[in-house]
Amino acid sequence: MDIYNMIEKIRSKRPLVHHLTNWVTIYDCANIVKVLGASPVMAHAAEESGDMAGLASSLVLNIGTLTPGFVESMKIAAASANKKGIPVILDVCGAGATRLRDEKSFELLDEVRIDVIKGNASEIARIAGEDVRTKGVDSAEVEKDLIELAKGLAVERGATVVITGKEDIAADKNRHFIVKNGHEMMTHVVGTGCMATSVIGTFCAVEKDLTIASAAALAYYGIAAELASGNARGPATFKEKLFDNIYRLDRETVERMQKIQ
Amino acid sequence: MDIYNMIEKIRSKRPLVHHLTNWVTIYDCANIVKVLGASPVMAHAAEESGDMAGLASSLVLNIGTLTPGFVESMKIAAASANKKGIPVILDVCGAGATRLRDEKSFELLDEVRIDVIKGNASEIARIAGEDVRTKGVDSAEVEKDLIELAKGLAVERGATVVITGKEDIAADKNRHFIVKNGHEMMTHVVGTGCMATSVIGTFCAVEKDLTIASAAALAYYGIAAELASGNARGPATFKEKLFDNIYRLDRETVERMQKIQ
Amino acid sequence: MDIYNMIEKIRSKRPLVHHLTNWVTIYDCANIVKVLGASPVMAHAAEESGDMAGLASSLVLNIGTLTPGFVESMKIAAASANKKGIPVILDVCGAGATRLRDEKSFELLDEVRIDVIKGNASEIARIAGEDVRTKGVDSAEVEKDLIELAKGLAVERGATVVITGKEDIAADKNRHFIVKNGHEMMTHVVGTGCMATSVIGTFCAVEKDLTIASAAALAYYGIAAELASGNARGPATFKEKLFDNIYRLDRETVERMQKIQ
Repeated sequence: MDIYNMIEKIRSKRPLVHHLTNWVTIYDCANIVKVLGASPVMAHAAEESGDMAGLASSLVLNIGTLTPGFVESMKIAAASANKKGIPVILDVCGAGATRLRDEKSFELLDEVRIDVIKGNASEIARIAGEDVRTKGVDSAEVEKDLIELAKGLAVERGATVVITGKEDIAADKNRHFIVKNGHEMMTHVVGTGCMATSVIGTFCAVEKDLTIASAAALAYYGIAAELASGNARGPATFKEKLFDNIYRLDRETVERMQKIQ
Repeated sequence: MDIYNMIEKIRSKRPLVHHLTNWVTIYDCANIVKVLGASPVMAHAAEESGDMAGLASSLVLNIGTLTPGFVESMKIAAASANKKGIPVILDVCGAGATRLRDEKSFELLDEVRIDVIKGNASEIARIAGEDVRTKGVDSAEVEKDLIELAKGLAVERGATVVITGKEDIAADKNRHFIVKNGHEMMTHVVGTGCMATSVIGTFCAVEKDLTIASAAALAYYGIAAELASGNARGPATFKEKLFDNIYRLDRETVERMQKIQ
Repeated sequence: MDIYNMIEKIRSKRPLVHHLTNWVTIYDCANIVKVLGASPVMAHAAEESGDMAGLASSLVLNIGTLTPGFVESMKIAAASANKKGIPVILDVCGAGATRLRDEKSFELLDEVRIDVIKGNASEIARIAGEDVRTKGVDSAEVEKDLIELAKGLAVERGATVVITGKEDIAADKNRHFIVKNGHEMMTHVVGTGCMATSVIGTFCAVEKDLTIASAAALAYYGIAAELASGNARGPATFKEKLFDNIYRLDRETVERMQKIQ
């Protein structure tokens, strides 16, 4: 898979990536899209979320700080994206923690077309109908085989499914990729999960095979993290280097370091 | 007081710290909880704020960017926290600046049980009934003796009271601690007050004596700031080092540097 | 124009700069005001936005993540600012991208007095009535002469008009300044446009000639960016240095580097 070719497309086309995302991490979601070379926009008003999706090349939804009204704006944006034929990525952040998150996740999956469903193991397990309790927005232990879990949900929902964790999985009904890039330090910084979704959304804006786009996105992001961890004093210097690396990585480094199975 | 023992409990138990906080500083509030080793969550919808508080080990409220609806969600979360018996920390950010802030602060104090009331000198003075005008969200001068002020409010409200400033005070009806850690550079970075509240909330999730937890939290945070100021070029490098230090501090450093009277 | 004299006024008077701004960039908007030496406040509830504006020395509005309700709070704040006689700065962020942004920009311009209108070339062109389509919140190409565009809108609206870009323009009906400070790296970081507006708002809090204040603000900000670009590894280290420089710049450096025509 030619990850760097997708990066070059992002940098030359500068696709607009529309978000209705988590208020906690919204800046970092926008900024990681920007340093990748694309153009982020965050427009949540019901009165314009559909118009903005109509200008965009992909749409990222994240229920991390959802309200019922916010989810209605997401549906309007997603309906517009579906109509235009651009990919819709949903981060089911915190699914399994409260009834509201479960209900609204299922509403989105049932009422609009979601092209990529992304979460950690316990979130995806909950969306696949398992009886698992997420701890806030952090992952709980899941016993089931994760590749099987991803593929099952991919078939059920006709979508690409991404499970992030120590190793990441991107699967559809036919294939799956395991991405072994990444670093433990990512778990000590708020927003690394949300940013992963924005990176996926950006790659999906230039690569039509969304499972390949998702795997490539996670590998690129993980490589930047591995390099950032090298001489980081802690989570804050790590994060700074992560963003610089997302901006700077060259083809040789990406090809040498990528670990996608 | 064994501050580092609390840090070790935070790192091993990874308590969930629920927030309904200031939209300006929400990322840093979440991130400082994360780098301490705990698990932050921010869920503000009235439809889930109570459920999320029911999963948490402490609840942090901050009225920095309040609306009436947001305060209603806070009350639902606090009622759930009160029922579960977990501590509720309230940052009366900007009290004394507008009528809305005063009214909603008093509503919260009257309608739910607040275990720790935290603010700067002019905010706490206003909550204690003094006629003082806060300048936006920054402190104005207060003439009254601050220890007396904290103790009086602690007795009136049956709570721990924290006043932050050049020196910090944590008091209840029986005792008070003066924390002399900290650094002037903290006043040049937005959110250091809000983050202090999140640090207090995290310590209160593992230490039942909330006055001790508050003093320990402020000392730990202040030590990290003192060390960060050492070779900082300005507020941004200072902030980066502050977060790295919150993550890294070891027992020897904390015990050597703590200045709690 | 004595830029540094304005900086000294900001540092000594510490003016309160009230914002109703973009939720994506709100932290950086507040923080840049803080590191300049002033006191930021963000209070968006309709129940207090007017009271808070009544305490402030300038008011910054930004429609980057607008909703109809949020714009109503802006009008309340602006009416209060108009009554008090403090300057109101409007960033027409994303004007030209959706109908909502156009409509609400015109409502604000028609219903309250806006003293400084600020945007990139395509946003200002749209506000001046040109038929141009903004790409999300990033600028599109504009064919018209930008100085003429700024002056025309300044006359039409009786305001100072600021157009940011590779070179920045600050114009009123009588004069215009071209600011040649700044660096290309600013385009790789989210929020540099929003922060420019907050810097303008801070300078307008201490300098009555708002066109001079705007030009001085953009030069100061641009000088800090030029110096930050020097040894930046990428956008994240650039941003850290930018904030440190905003805090640190001395008179000699500012006078030597300013490029205002």
